[in-house]
Amino acid sequence: MLARRLIERKRDGGRIASDEWRTLARAYGGGDVPDYQMAALLMAIYLRGLDNEETHALTDAMIASGSTLDVSGLAGARIDKHSTGGVGDKTSLILAPLIASLGVGVPMMSGRALGHTGGTLDKLEAIPGFRTDMSLGDAKRQLAKIGCVLIGQSAEIAPADRRMYALRDSTATIESIPLITASIMSKKLAEGLTGLVLDIKRGSGAFLPELPRGLELAASMIALGAARGCPVVALLTAMDRPLGRACGNAIEVEEAIQTLHGEGPPDLMRVTFALGAEMLMLADAATSRDDGWRKMEVAISSGAAARKFQDIIEAQGGNPKLVDDLALLPQAAECEFYTAPRSGIVARVEPRIIGNAITAIGGGRTRADDAIDPSVGFVISTNVGDAVHTGEPLATILARDGDGIRIARSALDVAIQIADEAEPPLPLISHRVTTEGVEPWDDESR
Amino acid sequence: MLARRLIERKRDGGRIASDEWRTLARAYGGGDVPDYQMAALLMAIYLRGLDNEETHALTDAMIASGSTLDVSGLAGARIDKHSTGGVGDKTSLILAPLIASLGVGVPMMSGRALGHTGGTLDKLEAIPGFRTDMSLGDAKRQLAKIGCVLIGQSAEIAPADRRMYALRDSTATIESIPLITASIMSKKLAEGLTGLVLDIKRGSGAFLPELPRGLELAASMIALGAARGCPVVALLTAMDRPLGRACGNAIEVEEAIQTLHGEGPPDLMRVTFALGAEMLMLADAATSRDDGWRKMEVAISSGAAARKFQDIIEAQGGNPKLVDDLALLPQAAECEFYTAPRSGIVARVEPRIIGNAITAIGGGRTRADDAIDPSVGFVISTNVGDAVHTGEPLATILARDGDGIRIARSALDVAIQIADEAEPPLPLISHRVTTEGVEPWDDESR
Repeated sequence: MLARRLIERKRDGGRIASDEWRTLARAYGGGDVPDYQMAALLMAIYLRGLDNEETHALTDAMIASGSTLDVSGLAGARIDKHSTGGVGDKTSLILAPLIASLGVGVPMMSGRALGHTGGTLDKLEAIPGFRTDMSLGDAKRQLAKIGCVLIGQSAEIAPADRRMYALRDSTATIESIPLITASIMSKKLAEGLTGLVLDIKRGSGAFLPELPRGLELAASMIALGAARGCPVVALLTAMDRPLGRACGNAIEVEEAIQTLHGEGPPDLMRVTFALGAEMLMLADAATSRDDGWRKMEVAISSGAAARKFQDIIEAQGGNPKLVDDLALLPQAAECEFYTAPRSGIVARVEPRIIGNAITAIGGGRTRADDAIDPSVGFVISTNVGDAVHTGEPLATILARDGDGIRIARSALDVAIQIADEAEPPLPLISHRVTTEGVEPWDDESR
Repeated sequence: MLARRLIERKRDGGRIASDEWRTLARAYGGGDVPDYQMAALLMAIYLRGLDNEETHALTDAMIASGSTLDVSGLAGARIDKHSTGGVGDKTSLILAPLIASLGVGVPMMSGRALGHTGGTLDKLEAIPGFRTDMSLGDAKRQLAKIGCVLIGQSAEIAPADRRMYALRDSTATIESIPLITASIMSKKLAEGLTGLVLDIKRGSGAFLPELPRGLELAASMIALGAARGCPVVALLTAMDRPLGRACGNAIEVEEAIQTLHGEGPPDLMRVTFALGAEMLMLADAATSRDDGWRKMEVAISSGAAARKFQDIIEAQGGNPKLVDDLALLPQAAECEFYTAPRSGIVARVEPRIIGNAITAIGGGRTRADDAIDPSVGFVISTNVGDAVHTGEPLATILARDGDGIRIARSALDVAIQIADEAEPPLPLISHRVTTEGVEPWDDESR
């Protein structure tokens, strides 16, 4: 009866009070409110919105529906980074060991692939033996011991969010700023963070392609973080093309490790360092962006960052030798070049098509219980604006079999557009948003 | 995948095409689209609306999800009457035999009690042995034989609507004009009607209390009927107080039978005759309202209407003697007067409170599988505007036990408001709507 009343009120544009959110989330998390009622409420929220106070109350209610990471006795800062999702975005794999190697705690909770975007958990599981399903107690012990833990959203954490998120995917209610805010922040606040850096993607491959919506999301998350004692800083970054070269699971781990060795592609290095510097500043482990940048360069050149990744892999059940021997990662059975069908300028490398193609050749899921082949994917070796000639290799396709190669090839025919001229792509990093407001990113500052 | 795409499109205010409605309704009726997706779509429809073409396509799709009454070989008109629901509204019980006794086919499909409003099926089942769950084949045979059949929505008819309706109740998506239109008309068109008379209730006890919404619903239903070869005429009638005196299941059957004997309360007789005259005119069985009115008076005074009800009861498994011996109906264990707590003018008799009280004392359902006690209810013997004196009986309470009497008594304390003066109630019948448009009801015309 409560659920029906709340649906009706939200449908008519009314407000839901804090104690009502709490009762609802507890009932839903416990299975006492059916999915169909929640689905109707989600659509009403999508179309009618939530004010800040409702968003904060919903977040609190989702946290209270489960357990939180016990941070008692943990000294120092705990900083996480969250991306709204993209293709080729492996910054989490790099930042977790990199920032932890500089003495900042990184309790990182990640998700699985969704739609056309990849998921950090799926990438980590490309490492043979790597486990992300540990208890909160084990997560705390690992965080205390090596300063970093990479986990998924267990059944313990915000179960109401967990059920609601699955529902949003199939009811077309994902792209709602208050719902996104509450979903992300309920998980992040349950980690006991002292600060959070957001990577808000914009452009055709992002969930919220338009800049104003991205800025709106940043403002919503920053307001919630401020109200709950967890400062949030957001960078707006480009997702009108993949980030870095590797797109897939095992090969993104490979590229992340190359980056930890200082050999990542420039765009990936740049976004990673920009986000990392914000993490260090939030942790008071860097006095400025330049200071943070330098510290990260040292952590990489000294090998500390790569060694920290070894510690993490070892602690979570994988083979740490893999960091020095990439051949220990799963290898695709078939590997072929994709060459330029004509000469011209690369006008577009469309992330959405590439992301969907990874799923189509077995590297993602169309159903929640699909198994993933971690070895498949793409290495895109061309960039928007490059002049290319017929027959020149633009990408490498990694597939299970000839069918996969064929599917991947037709996807690239559409994804990589060659024209006589090209519009410039979006700036790699365009804005920085804090409680102070929005500032354009000064590319020369670093 | 289809469902998700359609939800997304409707969410953004787009249109759903005829073939998409058909595919969706078939998949939903067959259980291939989960309730949570339909719930999200229903809320999107509630808030974004459907245009006429979409409403018609949804109706067609819901009809096509099941079977229809085979009308081949049936001669003459087939007319049904549908009410949007009220308290004390037993006109269906009277009109079915009355109009059938005048040679017009009446295939009447009714529903169960919903919210505070009663349901014709529940009232009919107050007649011991009466069955409404016959097959479409048996319904056709009875219609051919005695000119009338009173059935519920079987699993054969519009299963997509059946599932959707149950869902709308718990997701606060009932009061949507296009959804109401499609739901009612899918069932009515599946009966193979040649005409339909609508009784659209207005006032505090109606699902759509406001006149403009009632007129909007009338226009929507009339447009759909016209497009599908089933002329629709609507009357707007008052539901700011109960209709007639009896409110409950068995006692409404009793009052209906009294009306078939020519002894019904004036307001009930008037609404019944107004609707009946429209049914006769749609069937070309009356040349004018006056002509129809006279024919109905003859059918009642000659006993033909009451005999037709006996035929129906006998054909559907009940004891036809009951029409002449009302003591054969279930009788309540407890029966007490409710007397005026003060002197004054009766200012309100609130149907919603009375309807909910019937449920509270066992005469309705709070869950779909609740059993109903047909004997309980109220006989309201006072009318809005009556001058009453302290201690004067205003109603009779029929209950199972002392608890029921107490609950009913407190409900009447609130439902029957006595004041120093009273606003006039709504006109009993206020408008008549046809394809020609809206005309005010001319009360002097009959």
